[in-house]
Amino acid sequence: MQIYKAPIQDMMFQLTAFGYDKHVQSLEAFAAYDTATAAELLKSAGRFVTEVLLPINRSGDQQGLKWDPKTGAVTTPAGFREAYAQFTGNGFGGLCAAVDFGGSGAPISIGMFMSEMWTSGNKSFSMCPGLTSGLIEALEAHASDEIKQAFLPKLVSGEWTGTMCLTEPQCGTDLGLVRTKAIPAGDHYKLTGTKIWITFGEHDYTENIVHFVLARLPDAPEGIKGISVFLVPKITRDGKRNHVRCTGLEHKLGIHASPTCVIDMEDAVGYLVGEPHRGMRSMFTMMNTARLLVGVEGVALSEIAYQTALEFAKDRRQSRSLDPAKQDKSAAADNIMVHPDVRRMLLNVKCTLEGLRGLAAWASIELDIAHNHSDATVREEADDLAQLLTPIIKSYGTERGFLNVSEAMQVCGGAGYTRDWSIEQYLRDVRIAMLYEGTNHIQALDLVGRKLPRHGGRMFQRYCKRVGAFVAEHKDNQAMAEFVSATQASLTQLVDVTTKLAAKGMADAEEAGAGASHYLNLFALNALAYTWCVQVAHALSQGDDAHARTKLKTARYFFERVLPERLALEQYIAAGKATMMSFEVEEF
Amino acid sequence: MQIYKAPIQDMMFQLTAFGYDKHVQSLEAFAAYDTATAAELLKSAGRFVTEVLLPINRSGDQQGLKWDPKTGAVTTPAGFREAYAQFTGNGFGGLCAAVDFGGSGAPISIGMFMSEMWTSGNKSFSMCPGLTSGLIEALEAHASDEIKQAFLPKLVSGEWTGTMCLTEPQCGTDLGLVRTKAIPAGDHYKLTGTKIWITFGEHDYTENIVHFVLARLPDAPEGIKGISVFLVPKITRDGKRNHVRCTGLEHKLGIHASPTCVIDMEDAVGYLVGEPHRGMRSMFTMMNTARLLVGVEGVALSEIAYQTALEFAKDRRQSRSLDPAKQDKSAAADNIMVHPDVRRMLLNVKCTLEGLRGLAAWASIELDIAHNHSDATVREEADDLAQLLTPIIKSYGTERGFLNVSEAMQVCGGAGYTRDWSIEQYLRDVRIAMLYEGTNHIQALDLVGRKLPRHGGRMFQRYCKRVGAFVAEHKDNQAMAEFVSATQASLTQLVDVTTKLAAKGMADAEEAGAGASHYLNLFALNALAYTWCVQVAHALSQGDDAHARTKLKTARYFFERVLPERLALEQYIAAGKATMMSFEVEEF
Repeated sequence: MQIYKAPIQDMMFQLTAFGYDKHVQSLEAFAAYDTATAAELLKSAGRFVTEVLLPINRSGDQQGLKWDPKTGAVTTPAGFREAYAQFTGNGFGGLCAAVDFGGSGAPISIGMFMSEMWTSGNKSFSMCPGLTSGLIEALEAHASDEIKQAFLPKLVSGEWTGTMCLTEPQCGTDLGLVRTKAIPAGDHYKLTGTKIWITFGEHDYTENIVHFVLARLPDAPEGIKGISVFLVPKITRDGKRNHVRCTGLEHKLGIHASPTCVIDMEDAVGYLVGEPHRGMRSMFTMMNTARLLVGVEGVALSEIAYQTALEFAKDRRQSRSLDPAKQDKSAAADNIMVHPDVRRMLLNVKCTLEGLRGLAAWASIELDIAHNHSDATVREEADDLAQLLTPIIKSYGTERGFLNVSEAMQVCGGAGYTRDWSIEQYLRDVRIAMLYEGTNHIQALDLVGRKLPRHGGRMFQRYCKRVGAFVAEHKDNQAMAEFVSATQASLTQLVDVTTKLAAKGMADAEEAGAGASHYLNLFALNALAYTWCVQVAHALSQGDDAHARTKLKTARYFFERVLPERLALEQYIAAGKATMMSFEVEEF
Repeated sequence: MQIYKAPIQDMMFQLTAFGYDKHVQSLEAFAAYDTATAAELLKSAGRFVTEVLLPINRSGDQQGLKWDPKTGAVTTPAGFREAYAQFTGNGFGGLCAAVDFGGSGAPISIGMFMSEMWTSGNKSFSMCPGLTSGLIEALEAHASDEIKQAFLPKLVSGEWTGTMCLTEPQCGTDLGLVRTKAIPAGDHYKLTGTKIWITFGEHDYTENIVHFVLARLPDAPEGIKGISVFLVPKITRDGKRNHVRCTGLEHKLGIHASPTCVIDMEDAVGYLVGEPHRGMRSMFTMMNTARLLVGVEGVALSEIAYQTALEFAKDRRQSRSLDPAKQDKSAAADNIMVHPDVRRMLLNVKCTLEGLRGLAAWASIELDIAHNHSDATVREEADDLAQLLTPIIKSYGTERGFLNVSEAMQVCGGAGYTRDWSIEQYLRDVRIAMLYEGTNHIQALDLVGRKLPRHGGRMFQRYCKRVGAFVAEHKDNQAMAEFVSATQASLTQLVDVTTKLAAKGMADAEEAGAGASHYLNLFALNALAYTWCVQVAHALSQGDDAHARTKLKTARYFFERVLPERLALEQYIAAGKATMMSFEVEEF
């Protein structure tokens, strides 16, 4: 059984709470995307999910993929190819791409919520358009006009799809170890090497597939500063089948309908993107929005698992209410929604998923501003905030997503463990998000080692200023007091812990590494507290009493039952590296 | 790839730390089970796991089960039937069963660690002998001599296997809703009804299968007080095929080689066990040890996942050490064991799994004393402690087990998500343990609603006395100070929270329900702190410096990086029921 209703109401609530109107409508590029249009777009995406993507989600998981060792061809499960054709036919693929190349130029904030819905409905399917969007973004930012003209129109229309070829057997996290070679050959290059874990590296959706490949030129310096990036299409620009081939598929815990390919290149024709040895820049352009969207995958699977568990709980009767007044004497047992612990589990999911959705709305609106505002100072501030929040959303969003799906399974008891209620697939599918696009600890190192120190701590200062300003504005509002004061306390703690960790980390980088993952979670809790404050303030301002009341209760649950983890996290971070580094390898 | 070395050393360490020699050897029944014998038994079990059970674990998961709709027969994966024959041939099945019926009469503390190993090596396989042991225990305690003579010898030898038929479509947690009927028919009864989720309810290991079935007699009072229990064998005592049949298998996230059956009975011949309407007593006998063993499943899968992740980590090179002095200049990257976060993840698993193994050792030794000591006062105290600790081990052990396997997967990066490293199976297999044998919240209600108030709070007082006495004994020991003082602080907090929760819960049962799950975890953290104190004291007393040093470091890691969660838990519990109960059902 699969249950899903597109959460358009909450998405629109979040967009407006975080100033979609004010910010996005002031940007000339988005003149056509007012709130009503955004809502229509989200609704059409929601319909596509329930009508097309969801019905092939379970069958796709069970059928899986077929790989032909002779030809290297990959056959996707029944209905996927047709769904992809419909998807591109609806113009969903190029929604956020530049108008110049056939895109619709929509805000990322809308694209992100559409992506949440694709993922809820069919995570495997959603990965292919997700990667293609990332490639489009990287080419828009870094490719020559000639490359843009040759590739972007077909990628934007969805006639071709894109991949991201980073990992090799000896290098995942550490891309400095890339060995794939690129030899100059006139107007192009010849690439030779093996890439692994290439999502949709081969499939039957489209005739052509464009690989975005990290490789080294013959004169490349060692390590990360010698990486260049190339486009290696399955069909070359002169229409020939390129020497790039899928030589195997991974067998995985989940995302069974998403081919994870080994890709072999042997003198494959490739085209340089951007400058030689500067490939990491292009890759990070592709990666940054991708990381935000991966964080949102945690929200997406929390949402569908939550809806499923709620449906189960509303129907199931078991045991008696602990409060005699709530017992339904006409039946032999009460509906399990009367039990406090069932509510505890559901609310754990609800308050973190809505908190994270708010955080994603905030970050994506900042991204839209960063890319489109006319004032460079405004762009810079927005970019700082988006960049700072990205690793937090990716790591905390996916970790919580996994825990949330497990919590939803627990609500259903033994039924949750069976295929009947589908949560078991969501649990398998969501787990990958903690690992790919940089493992969650890589996000923590990005936060602590790159984002915090950059520009003398400017990003963090801007974050504190934003949260501090909100606190100052609302601290005398009686209805907000409980949330605002707790957010201030959490911010004070975050500043204090940040200062200490920075000082320790400056003197000894291992200290920063030892605290980074817990620090990211501490930061995430404060960011979620802030997003709940914003949501409550917006709900109170809307005058819709019923909805405001629910938001207020959910916020309260977050402050009572999730935020206090910050007390433990501070202790973990304070413990530092001493004990963990004191172990000899043989002692593990 | 599957990696497993039987953790005999730590098991023997835990047994001696918790006084196996002193306690168990003073019991006449266990005269033949000195430490050396215990070690030999564990070693032979370890060999069986690596030689027989582990090699069919992955293939069993992938092949799964076959069910024939025409006959109801279930075919287990290749090698399982033969492994079962070897298992019983080695006398593993009846190890802890009474000598009178062909058992070996070994201590439960040994049986428990053997069970840990079967589960590490092959969780699906381990479930069948596990249930049979539970049935043996229930029959030993409650069946008439006639029933014992008729069933026990064959169950103890393993010629027949046992099941536990509790759940029906309308009742899982709430067994008062059981509808299966039993009609007297001379010297036996005729049972009619449908049972679901019956583990090994049908299989091809043995000719006969003995079902332990909850049902209602015609004159039964409503609810839980009208439940009787019957033995319903597949082959009746006069050699005929009984009217009991497997009408389907569940399709599950994991434990694919363990048949989860729908069992239909239609006028099936059954034999009453114990008194009419008193079936819940017999069931709880079967359930209590079973709950302890399910908690140990979390340890078992933590152990094999940990060993796998460690093997991966010791081999993998990626990125540079953050400490230049530790960089291996002869290679392009350093071994990932240099990275603090890899150590953090591994130590999270190690310190909780060894802590829980200690807790299980303690509880099982208390069970051995409770069943066998000559002094009723001693038996009572031991039984109190074992009963109090059982729900804690079941719930916290399985929750941690799930988190630990996920943590081990994270150590392996993307490789952990593929079938190549097997952790993906452990993650799927371990998840069921949070759900069956009473969901984890049912354990929390058992702790808060039954165990704490029983006998005027005697069980909890005895627990506090035991921990308090240890603290008093070791508080002046310099080497122990850091652990002892933190354990005392945690105990003071636990007593305080218990008092408050009891007061609130007495006035309003929903308050107890709202706090129960977090309270159980708070209790578990104190119990683990205590078991780490015991381990450190024992390690220090042994004079083996290297091993003591590692135990001390691991304990320190637990106190620094796990125990502080108690600060957050106290806040969650203090929040009470108000917010969660304030939601209308429509607001979820």
